[in-house]
Amino acid sequence: MIIGAVEAGGTKFVCGIGNEEGVIQERVSFPTERPEETLAQVIDYFRDKQVESIGVGTFGPINIDPLSPLYGYVTTTPKPGWGNYPFLPELKKVFDIPFGWDTDVNAAALGEATWGAAKGLDSCLYYTIGTGVGVGVYAEGKLVHGLVHPEGGHVLTRRHPDDTYEGFCPYHGDCLEGMAAGPALEGRWKVKGSELQPDHPAWAMEAFYIGQAITSAVLLMSPKKVILGGGVMHQMHLFPMIREEVKKNLNGYISAQALLEGMDDYIVPPGLGDNAGLSGSLALALRAL
Amino acid sequence: MIIGAVEAGGTKFVCGIGNEEGVIQERVSFPTERPEETLAQVIDYFRDKQVESIGVGTFGPINIDPLSPLYGYVTTTPKPGWGNYPFLPELKKVFDIPFGWDTDVNAAALGEATWGAAKGLDSCLYYTIGTGVGVGVYAEGKLVHGLVHPEGGHVLTRRHPDDTYEGFCPYHGDCLEGMAAGPALEGRWKVKGSELQPDHPAWAMEAFYIGQAITSAVLLMSPKKVILGGGVMHQMHLFPMIREEVKKNLNGYISAQALLEGMDDYIVPPGLGDNAGLSGSLALALRAL
Repeated sequence: MIIGAVEAGGTKFVCGIGNEEGVIQERVSFPTERPEETLAQVIDYFRDKQVESIGVGTFGPINIDPLSPLYGYVTTTPKPGWGNYPFLPELKKVFDIPFGWDTDVNAAALGEATWGAAKGLDSCLYYTIGTGVGVGVYAEGKLVHGLVHPEGGHVLTRRHPDDTYEGFCPYHGDCLEGMAAGPALEGRWKVKGSELQPDHPAWAMEAFYIGQAITSAVLLMSPKKVILGGGVMHQMHLFPMIREEVKKNLNGYISAQALLEGMDDYIVPPGLGDNAGLSGSLALALRAL
Repeated sequence: MIIGAVEAGGTKFVCGIGNEEGVIQERVSFPTERPEETLAQVIDYFRDKQVESIGVGTFGPINIDPLSPLYGYVTTTPKPGWGNYPFLPELKKVFDIPFGWDTDVNAAALGEATWGAAKGLDSCLYYTIGTGVGVGVYAEGKLVHGLVHPEGGHVLTRRHPDDTYEGFCPYHGDCLEGMAAGPALEGRWKVKGSELQPDHPAWAMEAFYIGQAITSAVLLMSPKKVILGGGVMHQMHLFPMIREEVKKNLNGYISAQALLEGMDDYIVPPGLGDNAGLSGSLALALRAL
């Protein structure tokens, strides 16, 4: 079985093919331009591949309500040309096969639940912490959509007592994304996060915000695994610091082994590494069949 | 069809029978004593009722993992006799019929999604704000369980700038429950919430905390309806104040009609009123069939 996957990011697109075991056999990537040019490249790539379905995990916000006439559209993005663009309908014009369609983070959550760190579990949260913060939500064996789709990067957090940075989110100022995404590290410390040493106080503050958001998410949703990906989380020394924050915040309230002694195996990096995105789209394609 | 419902609260139990349309035909209630005495009353009530199934929505924490040997147990409650008590197994010894089993707030969420304010929707959040705060989570047509079960009453919130109250939660101090449940109103203002006039500053502060928690929950889960019940929410003047807080916090970020112009119909009281609990248990019983 050959299935197709598109990881549609704001700066680059990755297209690939793989099989039902999650093995990616081939991939190409190209910069994200205006939608017409970008989709022409996607279509060219898949034209002779004989794929049985294609999964698209994409930047957003997008319409994922199958009953809406705007299903498959990118909605309000400021990205030139992509606002109200019929992304999925354009692909469907060319390929008469089943399509999976979801946010990039929901796709990554599904990929991790299918082949990665949450394999075999019926729930997980997938955070990507990079230039922004996004959260994919998988619960009771399903990707959570709801009214629009999860936007958990923008939850409100308490301010660290030593932090005077105002936050860069144009909507909420000091929400999680505004305080903990890559640009917040740079805005607060005046150097790129990747240049800050592991013992720099920046990281304790970073763990404070991320740990706090995870605490509230764990309380609200009780996920079986929390997976943290994205550029900022390449700083592996953040993991033990975040686990410690969550443990401290929960303070033993939830008596579950995973949250008491099993934290090292509860808050983890993506099992699929940097393939989480493309593998997630592959999982969407598989589910569409 | 006759089905049974048990609303098991920390201070009283309500048992009733109803039909598949959610009509409750009869109910009795009695104080919650030690488990042996209390369950004896439950068993007596249902003995001659010929119910086809029974749904139990209960105080917790409880074990709701069907694969666990402790499925159906109350777990770590300080309530005398109820800690590690085999609540559901004791009922199953007597009645050889299907049982529904979930938290009281999950039951209420399901009841509202079946017959109440979220009727026909595949997602909602149900908050009860009274002596404590509990949150039931219904997403993609399923009650969310996960690792344990949602405990969204304890999410962390930002402190109101004028608030010096330390919060009463023994685990988290100033979490949502610690700052916004009934005892917090009384602890902060030295009178019962029901004695505070609608123009008292207590209510703006109350709406600040509740609105903040709802904002983050809406961002993380994108529910199609948010339902607020419990004793504190009998103060109907809180509803417009909470809606205003959520709108202000979201600041137009999510472009969904419900969150922009439709807020009056998005954050609402229980459609089933004070029957939400028992009707919810009825809905659990129906789903168990």
